[in-house]
Order: sequence, then structure tokens, then C-alpha cells
Amino acid sequence: MIIVLKPGATKEQIKYVVDKIKKMGLKPWISKGVERSIIGVIGAEDAIRLEPLEVFPGVEKVMPILKPYKLVSRDFKKENTVIDLGDSVKIGAEELIVMAGPCSVENEGLLIDIAKKVKAAGAKILRGGAFKPRTSPYSFQGLGEEGLKYLKRAKEETGLLIVTELMDSRNIDLMEKYTDIIQIGARNMQNFDLLKEVGRSKKPVLLKRGMSNTVKEFLMSAEYILSEGNFNVILCERGIRTFEDSTRFTLDISAVPLVKNLSHLPCIVDPSHATGKWGLVPPCARAAVAAGCDGLIVEVHPSPENAFSDGVQSLYPEKFSEMMLELREVAKAVGRAI
Amino acid sequence: MIIVLKPGATKEQIKYVVDKIKKMGLKPWISKGVERSIIGVIGAEDAIRLEPLEVFPGVEKVMPILKPYKLVSRDFKKENTVIDLGDSVKIGAEELIVMAGPCSVENEGLLIDIAKKVKAAGAKILRGGAFKPRTSPYSFQGLGEEGLKYLKRAKEETGLLIVTELMDSRNIDLMEKYTDIIQIGARNMQNFDLLKEVGRSKKPVLLKRGMSNTVKEFLMSAEYILSEGNFNVILCERGIRTFEDSTRFTLDISAVPLVKNLSHLPCIVDPSHATGKWGLVPPCARAAVAAGCDGLIVEVHPSPENAFSDGVQSLYPEKFSEMMLELREVAKAVGRAI
Amino acid sequence: MIIVLKPGATKEQIKYVVDKIKKMGLKPWISKGVERSIIGVIGAEDAIRLEPLEVFPGVEKVMPILKPYKLVSRDFKKENTVIDLGDSVKIGAEELIVMAGPCSVENEGLLIDIAKKVKAAGAKILRGGAFKPRTSPYSFQGLGEEGLKYLKRAKEETGLLIVTELMDSRNIDLMEKYTDIIQIGARNMQNFDLLKEVGRSKKPVLLKRGMSNTVKEFLMSAEYILSEGNFNVILCERGIRTFEDSTRFTLDISAVPLVKNLSHLPCIVDPSHATGKWGLVPPCARAAVAAGCDGLIVEVHPSPENAFSDGVQSLYPEKFSEMMLELREVAKAVGRAI
Amino acid sequence: MIIVLKPGATKEQIKYVVDKIKKMGLKPWISKGVERSIIGVIGAEDAIRLEPLEVFPGVEKVMPILKPYKLVSRDFKKENTVIDLGDSVKIGAEELIVMAGPCSVENEGLLIDIAKKVKAAGAKILRGGAFKPRTSPYSFQGLGEEGLKYLKRAKEETGLLIVTELMDSRNIDLMEKYTDIIQIGARNMQNFDLLKEVGRSKKPVLLKRGMSNTVKEFLMSAEYILSEGNFNVILCERGIRTFEDSTRFTLDISAVPLVKNLSHLPCIVDPSHATGKWGLVPPCARAAVAAGCDGLIVEVHPSPENAFSDGVQSLYPEKFSEMMLELREVAKAVGRAI
Repeated sequence: MIIVLKPGATKEQIKYVVDKIKKMGLKPWISKGVERSIIGVIGAEDAIRLEPLEVFPGVEKVMPILKPYKLVSRDFKKENTVIDLGDSVKIGAEELIVMAGPCSVENEGLLIDIAKKVKAAGAKILRGGAFKPRTSPYSFQGLGEEGLKYLKRAKEETGLLIVTELMDSRNIDLMEKYTDIIQIGARNMQNFDLLKEVGRSKKPVLLKRGMSNTVKEFLMSAEYILSEGNFNVILCERGIRTFEDSTRFTLDISAVPLVKNLSHLPCIVDPSHATGKWGLVPPCARAAVAAGCDGLIVEVHPSPENAFSDGVQSLYPEKFSEMMLELREVAKAVGRAI
Repeated sequence: MIIVLKPGATKEQIKYVVDKIKKMGLKPWISKGVERSIIGVIGAEDAIRLEPLEVFPGVEKVMPILKPYKLVSRDFKKENTVIDLGDSVKIGAEELIVMAGPCSVENEGLLIDIAKKVKAAGAKILRGGAFKPRTSPYSFQGLGEEGLKYLKRAKEETGLLIVTELMDSRNIDLMEKYTDIIQIGARNMQNFDLLKEVGRSKKPVLLKRGMSNTVKEFLMSAEYILSEGNFNVILCERGIRTFEDSTRFTLDISAVPLVKNLSHLPCIVDPSHATGKWGLVPPCARAAVAAGCDGLIVEVHPSPENAFSDGVQSLYPEKFSEMMLELREVAKAVGRAI
Repeated sequence: MIIVLKPGATKEQIKYVVDKIKKMGLKPWISKGVERSIIGVIGAEDAIRLEPLEVFPGVEKVMPILKPYKLVSRDFKKENTVIDLGDSVKIGAEELIVMAGPCSVENEGLLIDIAKKVKAAGAKILRGGAFKPRTSPYSFQGLGEEGLKYLKRAKEETGLLIVTELMDSRNIDLMEKYTDIIQIGARNMQNFDLLKEVGRSKKPVLLKRGMSNTVKEFLMSAEYILSEGNFNVILCERGIRTFEDSTRFTLDISAVPLVKNLSHLPCIVDPSHATGKWGLVPPCARAAVAAGCDGLIVEVHPSPENAFSDGVQSLYPEKFSEMMLELREVAKAVGRAI
Repeated sequence: MIIVLKPGATKEQIKYVVDKIKKMGLKPWISKGVERSIIGVIGAEDAIRLEPLEVFPGVEKVMPILKPYKLVSRDFKKENTVIDLGDSVKIGAEELIVMAGPCSVENEGLLIDIAKKVKAAGAKILRGGAFKPRTSPYSFQGLGEEGLKYLKRAKEETGLLIVTELMDSRNIDLMEKYTDIIQIGARNMQNFDLLKEVGRSKKPVLLKRGMSNTVKEFLMSAEYILSEGNFNVILCERGIRTFEDSTRFTLDISAVPLVKNLSHLPCIVDPSHATGKWGLVPPCARAAVAAGCDGLIVEVHPSPENAFSDGVQSLYPEKFSEMMLELREVAKAVGRAI
């Protein structure tokens, strides 16, 4: 940690800071510059990070040097984390995994129909919301446990694994019972109690990036889960909020190689929520594969015009099949498979 | 609702949309333009808002006309909502209410000391976090119920009312027991289960705007609480996330008059979190009062350099007292009082 | 255009708006809704777009229906624009065109050396700045005409075409003399006098998207150039400014398919400026090709650690060659070539 | 400057960096930490700032310590700069200066009428655009020199000083002839040739902040003007671009005290462009005064519904007069005058 002092910092002020650092068992060194002096701190930076050093008299600013996360970092673990979901479905390995399905679970017949179609096209995991985060209290809020039962039956029927969103800690037991991967939605990325809860679960977690969270904060939220003992976390880039209003969010494509570089965790992309327009889903999915993601999560609905939510961004099953063919080519081009 | 058709929309496509609208009991009218035609829908727009009309063949875009919120709207209730907290503390009336205190509750003595000082300076409500949302799992997470007890004792000692943050639905009973106002933090503004939970509570709710949420979404989250029966909601602007990195967030000052114009609910401002720098707190607090807010929530700590969290943005009690004197002048200048 | 009236709009207010519309030779129709009425306007929307209708008493908001640009729109021209630069270099055709070279032109020998290397790797156009837009007045500002001469010699030596940035209208003659494509930088995307100037030129124009401009504004700036008679405009997505600070900008990958959908103009991508980190350039370049761009512009420098500007985001020539091989595979996978 | 080395940086890599620093006449010192080592550089940081040290093998990141601007800094000049415009109009002194007038100059009679009204209300300077930056090439582009002549006549008639925008370096002579303050618009804040041009002028410059520029970049653009010899620069906060779409831009109110703290230059606020809605102009203007600005620039038009541009954000003269009365109270409350 580097502590930059104000031009006129007094000896007493410098001594006060230096004493504080020593009291924490750390070693300060001082360097006097032409315009201002700085104090460097050697030793475990974590302890001192919690101190509001910027408030100390004579201090101008404080610059941390080390990354604030540990367990999720590539410094901590060099090799890619591969999450083995059974049935030879592995996330983070050479083969990319595609999760597909409707935004909301609406009824059993429809769900099983979609499940069969996305499986035929190559998807390995069925997505579908039973608990839905909706901006309006008057919008469809999901079928709850009933929806989870439909997902389970779709699994029995097709062999697809299941991913669904957990919104409330009180429903963790339902998740353990019905799903293979627990999804934490973008709006809950910094719901820290929920993160701790799934950190104590044995189920793999799909953590979506918050719409206005930096890559650093994204990794810190994953750190919450790992620090509770659950190392099976799949990161998901799903678009960030910007001034651009012709898409629902802005897909941050560079976050994919960046996250893969900083962390050993697998990283997938959600082109449906990122763009909010089905016509942009295939090109953005191709881009994500080319950029090095480990999988995709895509909304598919047999009649988007009748969907209870997010119809505009859902692909027809035929479009999804076409897209899967294209993605296979792109995956091959970058040394991967789908 | 206005449905804009594509230039080459066929008769069949138009008929399909028109039939859909009629089936919902609504009345469509068609208007043919030079370049493209549009369909207007008369009647309750809510029903049709849930339909993904943009996916219909022949449809280019859909433009809602009405606001998506009802109960929070000034159209629904013309007069300002005034929340009577007892002890002649009213939020939304002529007098502005200042809430002040430390970011985190750290120990009883310190808390009571701050409470006395902020009361002396004119604050009416004591703020302090017992449950703390922290980016890092390794940061101080709050004292939990112990912290709530300290808050209660500070209340007994000073007569100040208490506001503190609820992060997890499972702690709602603790809130009912210890606090006067339940705070929903920015990171939970779209934690819809939590919003419903406090909507069923009898306690007034302080709802902070999410760091990347629009004013419209902010009002929709308030609508969640009102729609469950709790009309005592205080809105709080606390800065939004932008590209500017010299402040922690960007205080959206225009949101104050905008929210007051769109809604009957009281609106306060948090200049401490918005700026992240104590030196900017007084000028931004003055600006908020001048812009017409109904109150402020401010971090105060007797030794910010020893605070467990957010020290950099906390004011010393003396600075807070000075600021209160300035605010009193500005309030008077705009026909209000503190 | 749709004019939404306030709930309590009076007959006189409505008449005033209606008369205004008729006076412009347009045809209004009124539709009375349950909560509020609206007025639709049929006819050329352009005339009325300039009127501040929202200020009229009784008017709540105004919603335009048509796009504000014409000449750049796919509605105006269905087929892709292909810009023939001679020497069988065409932008917008099946083959993707790669532009590469140093950020700044520094000296003749170095430039020719880079030119040979990027040509060998498959680039068709040499980039290099002679006039440099720099945030600081104390940074290297470019060699000016001397730099343009070096570019010309590099062209003679290698046969590569030249693209370089014009910052000041007063240098348009130098551009006509030395370059094959005139670049308008991101910071000048709304320098309207400069846009008009290059609109009157015969040279193709590479128009970079402003760091905080929407796709709509981007197309409007292109419209400026086309409206002056120059239809040879190449659009370039180069990253937008967001809250994310681990990259220099955020590459808006979805802008590529969006722009290709809305406009007939070719669209290329600059992964070097978008990311600001050379390690992210190859994955983002692959993503851009997969998303359907028509070319790339990439910074290459033989010793980035000695570059006068933007060293951190420049690729070594060997890295560039490697990347070109990868891009060739991805291009093939999406039915294109490099 | 602090250079953070990678965990596994070799001795050779460190030596390479150290040698480079010494060659520039600077003094490096090395400090070995537990996880990684760092190199500090003592001496004039400017020289080394231009080197892309981050590209050097073994280097992880580079952190500058000093501010990149000099002449605009409060470190360079402690006292506020007061710009004396003659006729006892001073910007940066105790009295706040209000500039008001129409967005565009439309005709002489109208302009003189507005000028008289804003003067009566207390404005000291008349604003009005003769050259207009417009998003669309089909929008009104301003009257050019004809407009400047009208401004001059309005000055003769009322005694108000004149501020108007310069968009093209080629019109600098017209500016010298007709105006008292040259405005550089937000879209040209990083048009560096234009900045240098007005830097060589004797006229005071009103520099508007770019819609997506940080406060640091804003000060760097001012530095361009000062570094050419013109120290009479007035900074103007006019809203930044964010995700919030209910206002045209987001007024960054905290930029006012921040800029005043970092720089000795006067800082004014434009609430009209910042909000884009006339109803929000008075509360935001009051906020700006309370936050400590040195003046305001406001759009006023006698019939906004007939204005050629920006009608929606213009105040009627009567509203402007009312607002001036309110501002006077707020100014008094913060120890200033209008």
C-alpha cells in the first residue's frame, strides 16, 4: 500500500501515520520526493486496507497495490477450475456448455417441449425461472415451487440438467431439492446474505454480474461464495448499464478474457439479457465464443409473442438450432468444441 | 400504447395484432402514415404491457404512453405524503429532517456519544448499521443484534429515533423490535422479496436508490412496497454510478425535484455515500436542500480515522454542527426550516 | 409523431397544438383515451421534429416514430455499400480488411519496418497518426506534415494504402495530398464543421464513434458526411465510456450487428483503443470478426515500450501475425475471409 | 510514480526498468514486499509519464502520484482567479454572474427583447449561439456572422456583455471582433486545435465540460488554453452522460466544489443543458449556487414553443425573473451575492 502525503504534511502527521502502521505489525518506509513524500507499507495489506487512512491529517490519497480477492484469483490457483456436473457435463473444460430455455417456467407441457428442442440442438442444461425478479409488482412473478416441479419433470424426460434462480435465502432448501445449479441473478450480485447462503450449499452456483458492477466487484462477490467453502462458481457476463439505449444493456465482451485472465473460474455469457433483442443474440453469442467464454445461457421460447416475460429477447427453437450450428464452427476456429 | 408497424407490414400481420388487442378487451385504432402505419390502443394499458408485442411479425416497436407505476404517482395522490414518526418528527412537511450517525455501530459508548452530539446539532434521527453490506467478505460485517441493542439504548438516552438497514428478510422481526425506520440499501433496491417483506411491515421504510437504477425503476421499487399496503416510504437519492472516478458516485441532484414532481412521497439525500469524500459533503448537502429535498442522511464519526467502515466520508461532529448552521440558512432561503 | 397530452389538457390547448400542426401542412388526428388523449401526426415528420412541442401548454411528452437519419439508413439503400479503394482493396465486401500500424508516426525507418511486417501478416492498409489528439498539452502532439510524408513513403515502399487522422479543417488539403482514407477521431465525432469539410472531400472517410455517443448519434454524424455528397463512409466502433475501469473503454460489440442492421455502410472495429490493453486485443478482435464486422484497425509497434503514445495497447508484430492467423479461422467460420 | 512489479519479475527485468529511469535523470528506489516488489521514482514525474512502462516485461501496473495538470492547479496558484470583464463585471469574485439568453440567435428584434428582459432581472452577460452544434445536419445551424451582428447590437442597446460559441478555428477573427467571451462547447472540449487557438486569443474563454469527460480531463483541456498563454478561463459544468434517461444529462453537482478545490479558476453551471427540462432549471440553479458556483448560464426565450432550438429547456422571461429572486436568497445564505 502506498500512502501519498500532502505537500505540507508535518513531521507530527507523518509520525502519527507511521506509528499506526507499526502498531498493526507492518513495516513502513518513507520516501521524500521533490513535491511530496510517500509512505510505503510492506506486509499483509489486508489488515491496513480496512483503515480509512485517507482521513488521517496530512494524507492526500491511499493507493492499494494488491488485489482485494484471493481465492478466486489465478495467483491462488493457476489451472482452470473445471466443474463436473455429472452425466459427463463439465463446465470450464474444452467443450463449451450451452444452457437454454424459457425466461419463466409457464407450464409443464411447454417446458418439456422446449427442453426436447434445445437438447436436440445441443444444449446440455435447461434454464427456466420459477422465481422471477420483475421491475413491476404487477408483472408475472413466477410459479414458485410448482415451476421447480415442472423443471424436475423436464429433467426426468430429457436428461438435461437444471439451472434456476434463487432470490430469497428462505428458498434454499427448495433449490437443494430441485436444481443442479443455483443461479444468483444480476440484481442480487451484492445481496451478501444470499451469497453466504449459497456459499454454504453443495450445489454449483451460477453468479451473474450486476448490471452496474465492475469486474473487480464481480470477483469479490464470487469470493464471498468461495470463502464460505463452495468453490464451484460459474461467472456469467450479462451486460452492463451504459448510456446506450438501443440495446437493453451493453454486453461487455472484454470482460470475458479479462475474467479468464484474473481468475481460474469458468466464465459464460448471456447474450439474451445483454442485448434484449433476439436479432442480436446470434452475433453476440458468436462473439462470446470467439472471445473465449466457457459457455452460454440463452433464452428460447416456441412462441415468444406469447411468453410471460422477456419475449422480445427469446429465440424461436429453429433460430436456436441454426445458431448452434454457427457456434460450432466458431468454437472449432478457436480450438474449442460445442 | 402505440404500436409502430414495419414499412412492409402485411394485412394479415396487422389483423393478427388487432385481434390480439381486441381479445384483451381493448380498443385498437389504426392510422396509416406515409412511411409506416401505427396502431393505437385505448383502455387499460397495464394488461397489454405484459405482452411482448415487439416480437409480433410486422411490428417495429412499441411505445407505452402511461407511467408503469400508480400508487406512488402524483396522479394518484396530489398532496405530499407526510410521515408522522411521533415525537413531532414528520418527514415530508415544511421542516427538513436530518438523520445522522456512524456508518457502522461499533460500540455502545461511542454510539451514545455521537448520538448526543448530532442531537445537539439538530438531527432528529440516529443512523447506524448493525448489518453491513460490504464488498469484501473479509471486511467488518456489522455487530448484528448486538448493534441493534446499542441503537435502542442510544434512543433511550437521547430521544432520537432510529433508522437502520435490513439486508435479509429473516431479520424482519428484529427490525420491528428495535428500529423506527427500516432502511433498504442501494444494493437491495431490486431485491423484490425484501421489498414485499417490508411492504407488509407497519414500520416506515427508507428506500435508497440503486446505484445504477433510473428514477423510473426507483419509483417502481417503491410501488412494490406500497402495493403490499405500506404507504410510509421515504425515497433517498444517494448517487449513481457513472464514468467519473474522482467521487465515489455521482450525486444526481436533478432526481430530487424530478421525484418530488412525479411522486407524492418524501425524498431525502445522502451526500456522504454519494460523494465518498467528507470535504464534498457540506456543499452537496446545501445543494440538496436548495433543490428541495425533505431531509438528509449524513455519516458522522468522532474519529473517522478509527471508523470500522466509510471513515473517509464521515464528518467530525464539529464539522457536522457547522454544516447544520449553513443548512439552516439555505433552508430558510427556500422557504423551509431545519 | 405522437403527442401525448396531460390528463387535464383543455380544449383550447388541444386546438392550439392541432392548429400548429395544420399550419405546417401536416394532418393531425386525435384519440381520446381513458386517462389521457393523444394526437398523432401524419406526414413528413422532419418538419415537426424541429418544433419544441413539449413546451406547448397541455402537452406531456412527444414521441417521434421515424428515424432521424435518411441517407445512411438501410431503408434508403438495401444493399451493403462497398467502398472500392483501388488495388483490389474493397471495404464492405466478403473479405475483411485489416488496417494496422503504430499509434503515432515517429520516424521513417520505423514506420517502413512496421509497414512491411503488417503487410506480410495480411494487413491491407497502414494506419499512423501525424496529428495526434492528446489529453495533455505536454504530450507528444505528432509530427504533422513530416509524418504524412513518411506515410507516403511507406506506401510507395509497400503498396499499402494509408489512413490517418484529420483534426483541423485547415489541414484538409494535406489529407487530400497524402492519404487514402481520412480518419475522424472519436473526440471529433460531433465536430460538425469538420464533418461537413470531409463531406465535401472525394476521399473515403473513417468515422470513429464518440466515446459517449449512442449508435443513433453515430449514424447522425455519418449523415452529416453523406448529406454533403460523400457516400464513402466507414463506421468504426472503438469502445464507449462506462463505469468499468479495468479497461480503457468498453467495447460495444453489439453495436456491430446493430449498425449493420440499421445502415448499409461498412463497419469496422478498433480493439486497441477499446480495451487499452494489448493482451485483450486478440480475443476482442476475434469477437468482432465473429459478430460480423467488415474489418479491424489495430495498433502494432515493434517496441511498444518505446512508443511515443499508446504503447500499452500496441501489439508486437509477431503477436499481430499470430492474431491474423486466428482471425482467418474465425472469418472462415462465419463465411468471410481475411 | 510507483511501478508495481509482477510476483515473478526477474532481476534482469527489474534492472531494465531501473536503467530506463536513471537514463531519464530520475532516481529510482526499490522496495521488496512479501508478495511483490515495487519501484518508486523520485523527481519530475512528467518525463516518465509519457513512457508506456506498463509494457515493460515484469511490470504489472504503473500508478502516477502527481496531478497531470500544473497551471490550472491550486498548488500552482492559491488565490481564486478573478476575471475582470470591464463594466465592473467580474467572474470569480464574491458576486455571482448570470449569463442568460436564447439558445440560438434567431432575429434582431427578438434578441434585443430578451436581452432587455434578462438584464432587468439581473443578468450581466447575454448568451446566444450564432454557430450551432446540432446532432442532425437537417436542423437549424445558426445564422453565422449575421447572428454575431445581432449580438453586438443587443450589447449596444443594453450594455450586456456577450458570450457566444466558437466551433471552427477559421472563425476566430469573427469572435475577436464581436464577442466578449468565447465559448467552447461540450462537443469540442477535446478539440485540441481549437483549444490552442483560443489559448492564443486575448479574450476570456468559457470552457464547457464534455458530456463524457472526467473532471481531470476537463482540467487538462483548460491546461491546454493556459499553456498557450490565456489564463482567463471560466469552467462550466453542464451535465454528464449517464444511464438515467429522464433528464437530458445528469448535472454533476459535486463537480462544482471539487473543481473549486482543485483549481483556482472560476466555475459556473449550465442547468438548462444539464437537465433539458425547464421545470428542473430553477431547483438545479439553486442547488448550483448553494454548492458554491461562481455563476450560471441559462437559456431564456420569450416563446419557447417557437424557439429554433432547445425550446424545451428554455425559461420564459417571467420564470427567469422569479428564479433570479430565489437565487438571490440562496446566494445570500451562502455568503455570496447576485
